[in-house]
Amino acid sequence: MPRFKLTLEYDGGDFVGWQRQANGRSVQEALEDAVFKFTAERIEVIGAGRTDTGVHASGQIAHLDLIKAWDLETVRDAINFHIKPHRVSVLSAENAAPGFHARFDAKARAYRYVILNRRSPPALLRGQAWHVVNPLDEARMHEAAQRLIGKHDFTTFRAAACQSASPLKTLDRLAVSRLDDRVLIEAKARSFLHHQVRSFVGTLRLVGEGKWTADDVSAALAACDRARCGPVAPADGLTLVAVDY
Amino acid sequence: MPRFKLTLEYDGGDFVGWQRQANGRSVQEALEDAVFKFTAERIEVIGAGRTDTGVHASGQIAHLDLIKAWDLETVRDAINFHIKPHRVSVLSAENAAPGFHARFDAKARAYRYVILNRRSPPALLRGQAWHVVNPLDEARMHEAAQRLIGKHDFTTFRAAACQSASPLKTLDRLAVSRLDDRVLIEAKARSFLHHQVRSFVGTLRLVGEGKWTADDVSAALAACDRARCGPVAPADGLTLVAVDY
Repeated sequence: MPRFKLTLEYDGGDFVGWQRQANGRSVQEALEDAVFKFTAERIEVIGAGRTDTGVHASGQIAHLDLIKAWDLETVRDAINFHIKPHRVSVLSAENAAPGFHARFDAKARAYRYVILNRRSPPALLRGQAWHVVNPLDEARMHEAAQRLIGKHDFTTFRAAACQSASPLKTLDRLAVSRLDDRVLIEAKARSFLHHQVRSFVGTLRLVGEGKWTADDVSAALAACDRARCGPVAPADGLTLVAVDY
Repeated sequence: MPRFKLTLEYDGGDFVGWQRQANGRSVQEALEDAVFKFTAERIEVIGAGRTDTGVHASGQIAHLDLIKAWDLETVRDAINFHIKPHRVSVLSAENAAPGFHARFDAKARAYRYVILNRRSPPALLRGQAWHVVNPLDEARMHEAAQRLIGKHDFTTFRAAACQSASPLKTLDRLAVSRLDDRVLIEAKARSFLHHQVRSFVGTLRLVGEGKWTADDVSAALAACDRARCGPVAPADGLTLVAVDY
């Protein structure tokens, strides 16, 4: 059976997350239902990143197998047609090698987090940013973020529910910058622990507010203790932007 | 009575437009109701631009008079508190001179229009961009747009319902650029006719698709004939970004 690789955009606010669940509509289920309407095949769609409830994607990657070697344009357009009105869009469909696995073959995942840093609540970015009122010093946040780069035991920044076999991960990039009233945090690694990016963001917020120093971040990392993490940032501001293979 | 000047952000998708109307909730009404909850005063809020149904704002300006000389922070925060859950946010409140008029004193208004130019429908920009599938040549659009700069009779680009006394307006800026799969159109003038920016965008789309030349745009302008306008672009992509005084 031919295997297809999809690049996906979605608004996480409409879903209980990527993964099929009993308590509501997942992105995976919406895609599988659209494929069923298209080819009458009940197949599984495997995603590179199992994004949580409310987390968005502009470059999620998934794979699926279909009986026929459909035109790539047909796969893209048919899924987009049948998935309406859900806020999921197939940006492209490509032919994948038979053994290609969207999740296990991924070499790196890139996330972006948006903080709206101003007094007034968001009207246009509602559901797409974390509203933080206290002025944040993005230069201090960036400096502290560099303490987290490299291979570490990230137990401090890992949700209790995390299913990863090991807390050891290698963080390639954690960059903080400002664009007007938005503070952007860009993170890149081969893979992340559950809530790792949101744990970083919640901790860096404390640095940006002047409550923590870069040394406090280093100490929290070294402690390997979940209780040393800052309050976890909400899902709204997080987007899976790219997956590299 | 002290006069206040407000800078406002709102999501036009939630409203029938700026102006109070019988057929649904307007931004003006939402603000006036919030002010009533704050001071128990039934006042009128006057906006610089009477944005249509679905048109957004990131820098709308309005004025209002209150009995008390409230702290500016209190005015901003109280309106933001009472206007929930509507997607309107007061970015700032300032003291205005007694004679200041948000609409009549405006020296220039700036709008931005966003076209999402790709095959796949929007998931993240839904309601905030016009989805155009045919590839657009933004350089040709920009060149043609320059034919519209200056003082002209803009009858061709004016809605039948326009209440302006004259079709003569001076267009200061109409710039087209691309950012990845988004084509941005930025327009600036002292004031605009009803549907003028959306009429420009609908016409420039024809240029971007190669159906019209810059000379066709010049001829349509010179004809002073509404029938010569391209199909008017939808409201979703339009945002009032700034008002100068």
